[in-house]
Amino acid sequence: MAELKLVKIGGNVIENREALADFLEDFAALNGPKVLVHGGGKEATQMAKKLGVNVQLIEGRRVTDAKNLELITMLYAGKLNKNIVAQLQALGCNSLGLTGADGNSILAEKRPSKPIDFGFVGDLTEVNQSFFKMLLDSGISPVCCALSHDGKGQLLNTNADTIAATLASGLSDHFDVSLNYCFEKNGVLLDLEDDRSVIQTLDETNYLKLKSEGVLHTGMLPKLENCFTALKAGVKQVRIGSPKIITESVNYTQIIN
Amino acid sequence: MAELKLVKIGGNVIENREALADFLEDFAALNGPKVLVHGGGKEATQMAKKLGVNVQLIEGRRVTDAKNLELITMLYAGKLNKNIVAQLQALGCNSLGLTGADGNSILAEKRPSKPIDFGFVGDLTEVNQSFFKMLLDSGISPVCCALSHDGKGQLLNTNADTIAATLASGLSDHFDVSLNYCFEKNGVLLDLEDDRSVIQTLDETNYLKLKSEGVLHTGMLPKLENCFTALKAGVKQVRIGSPKIITESVNYTQIIN
Repeated sequence: MAELKLVKIGGNVIENREALADFLEDFAALNGPKVLVHGGGKEATQMAKKLGVNVQLIEGRRVTDAKNLELITMLYAGKLNKNIVAQLQALGCNSLGLTGADGNSILAEKRPSKPIDFGFVGDLTEVNQSFFKMLLDSGISPVCCALSHDGKGQLLNTNADTIAATLASGLSDHFDVSLNYCFEKNGVLLDLEDDRSVIQTLDETNYLKLKSEGVLHTGMLPKLENCFTALKAGVKQVRIGSPKIITESVNYTQIIN
Repeated sequence: MAELKLVKIGGNVIENREALADFLEDFAALNGPKVLVHGGGKEATQMAKKLGVNVQLIEGRRVTDAKNLELITMLYAGKLNKNIVAQLQALGCNSLGLTGADGNSILAEKRPSKPIDFGFVGDLTEVNQSFFKMLLDSGISPVCCALSHDGKGQLLNTNADTIAATLASGLSDHFDVSLNYCFEKNGVLLDLEDDRSVIQTLDETNYLKLKSEGVLHTGMLPKLENCFTALKAGVKQVRIGSPKIITESVNYTQIIN
């Protein structure tokens, strides 16, 4: 099977014009089929303030009511996604921006409102493999933002890490998928204050050990859960590191079974 | 050649939730390959106010500076386009939202800044026929908003009527294209105050005559210029009327050579 590189970038890259330009240059230079998944960053909160949209948090997590969904649809699927696509085109990378509604590409169910109602948030159910395969076979790189849909007319806010893992898993029937989580650290760190403390390889046993010891912090846990889920679903390689891992020999954390 | 229906809807449909739902139901029910092009409506002006973005007009026409471009990218490519796509999916119509940057689908050049600098406005240069054909052959209906790109990283605000005509022309190599302009009137009217005064058929000679007599008003002129350009480029049928023309036997204006 052909190799496919799936890269997820988060807020730290999205929010910094220069970092984003650097990253997109690297991404455009990757050979072979590739997919980009991007998060949203903090601009949603800033824009909510400007537009007078209330941001409600429950247990530290944002509630996506109708107005917030509208706002992130404008920001993620509009401003961020389309500027990334336009920049990639300029770099000779034929890309196509997607929400889960486009081409019925990523389906989800609205998360149950019990015990906590997080609003229009989606739990993924299905990836439209044949649609992604058609694009990739035509030399087009899908650029996915963090929105899925329920097939009944509703867009749903969805965690970008989970979209990346689910896409990687779904595409593993057709490709040897390498899943790359790029964020603000050089990898999974033993000591959050020390960027040199990158864990080279991490398997589930060690993950559970470090988790029980409290070494791994809260934000990293769902990301790592996504990694193990992807590996179990047939994804060939899962890496966590800085955006540089896709082109350079730098440190990163390899997640293994 | 197979028939292709291209439908352009303007602000009056976009701005009215019920009218839009009605139209999308009709559009989804159309058989065979089809393309939707949508304008933006007045929400851009309202949102500019909310966000404190200045709207500059020169000779009655909006100037698209960087902040206004960002705003319409959020609104047209984000909110409007993605909600249309999600609603079409719910109606069983597999659609895909596009700016001109997506799939390198619609290329343009930034309009020269002399004599008047309208900012980030695009004059169309090319339609990526093979991309549209691939989508249509796969049963996917493209949904295009009024943004093109220059291939050098810049999105460009582009008249939706012109996008519709240029797309219709470009796709005429592969399809018998029927181009339908749907707007708030029942067709081209002899008397703007009388909705029953629909001109049944209009050729260029009559158009020039009515134009010189001042019967046709300013907003209609560029739309009709687009119609004649499309016909000359091989589009089979061009119609102007209410959104109902795509499914019902209602009055409309047929533009002929």
